[in-house]
Amino acid sequence: MTVLTLYELAGADAQLRFSPHCWKTRMALAHKGLQASRVAWRFTDTDVIGFSGQQRVPVLVDAGTSIHDSWQIALYLEDRFPERPSLFDHAAAIPLTDFVNRWADAILLPAVARIILVDVYNHLSPGDQPYFRASREARFGCRLEEVVADRSGHIAALRHTLAPLRLALGGRPFLTGAQPAYADYCVFGMFMWARCVCSAELVEEGDSVFGWRDRLLNAFDGLARHALSVEHEDVHEWTNLS
Amino acid sequence: MTVLTLYELAGADAQLRFSPHCWKTRMALAHKGLQASRVAWRFTDTDVIGFSGQQRVPVLVDAGTSIHDSWQIALYLEDRFPERPSLFDHAAAIPLTDFVNRWADAILLPAVARIILVDVYNHLSPGDQPYFRASREARFGCRLEEVVADRSGHIAALRHTLAPLRLALGGRPFLTGAQPAYADYCVFGMFMWARCVCSAELVEEGDSVFGWRDRLLNAFDGLARHALSVEHEDVHEWTNLS
Repeated sequence: MTVLTLYELAGADAQLRFSPHCWKTRMALAHKGLQASRVAWRFTDTDVIGFSGQQRVPVLVDAGTSIHDSWQIALYLEDRFPERPSLFDHAAAIPLTDFVNRWADAILLPAVARIILVDVYNHLSPGDQPYFRASREARFGCRLEEVVADRSGHIAALRHTLAPLRLALGGRPFLTGAQPAYADYCVFGMFMWARCVCSAELVEEGDSVFGWRDRLLNAFDGLARHALSVEHEDVHEWTNLS
Repeated sequence: MTVLTLYELAGADAQLRFSPHCWKTRMALAHKGLQASRVAWRFTDTDVIGFSGQQRVPVLVDAGTSIHDSWQIALYLEDRFPERPSLFDHAAAIPLTDFVNRWADAILLPAVARIILVDVYNHLSPGDQPYFRASREARFGCRLEEVVADRSGHIAALRHTLAPLRLALGGRPFLTGAQPAYADYCVFGMFMWARCVCSAELVEEGDSVFGWRDRLLNAFDGLARHALSVEHEDVHEWTNLS
């Protein structure tokens, strides 16, 4: 029996796990049909993951081997569990999945941050808040409250940024085709980040991105939909359906 | 012997073939080792491609079958010539290649347009210029000259837009790995569009995108590098090397 441990960023409520990168790994583990012990970690717990030689989560520990960086974890899982469903369908898709992941991190993440940064801050444990405020204000060059001031403008900008995703999903249920794969999870992680801490609707119901996100919320027996988050209308709908 | 005909957008000089979408197809044909008769077409030649049931190039004709839309042409070539080098490495990469193509068209193309639109206009045949000005000014909501007014700002914005490409190319020579494939050509087409009509340098020499573009300029015996364009320093360098 494989014993895996996943260190995940947690909020003031230890069950609130909102990190977009940790969500990539959670979906990857579910895709492979793997269970992991999930350990709540906070930004200030640097010593707790000191064994990994760096200070960020997710960190996955597999029988004494530690892997950090969600992309490296995905490659590791693919290599370590080749008999389980592939995260890439085929090795030929790995470089393009990397491109999608880079797009999610470099373009989509900042676009979502401009909407939810104060919500993230408000859900952090009090001990993490000073670090988060200082590091993010340095990155954005202004106060968190100023970053998110124009919410409707930032939501409109995000919807524009989503154009390639919207168009690609016009012709297929998932970014990778009939079934989801790691490229989908890379992008979906950004939506889970928002979902966990913010009740604002980022995409319109008729948008192909909306249906895609819904399918991923339902994947693996509703793993993502049932995860602790601020209240969303669909939680109620889902309860009625199941 | 396969007889293929490709209708390509041409400028005032019929040898100037700058359309980004036609470049995707030219690179795809070269990748497959296929020759095509290349027919110069202009925006006002709508009757010339009337047989295709629409009014845009590229149009490929293969022994009586006509295919339009560069993406459909790529899928057609892959299906029609399966024994030749694959445009996707593996069918599993087709959906993600579509995403890259959508990103190129929806995000990269407008970012490049904001730099080169007047250069494109200046290289069109006089008969095409009124159509081009009217249609593009309607799309951008202002005069062509206003679209491109802040060139250095638009070049900086383009370089920011290229972040996912830059990062993905940090670890491999081509977007698709060790060898180029159709996803590379989708993005490269945007750079050929600029190269044909504009001498401004869009990326810095140390940028991973610069080296990638150089490798694609050299591909297929310098097919793209030797194509008619406004003067670039590298044309001279290439002549010295070869």
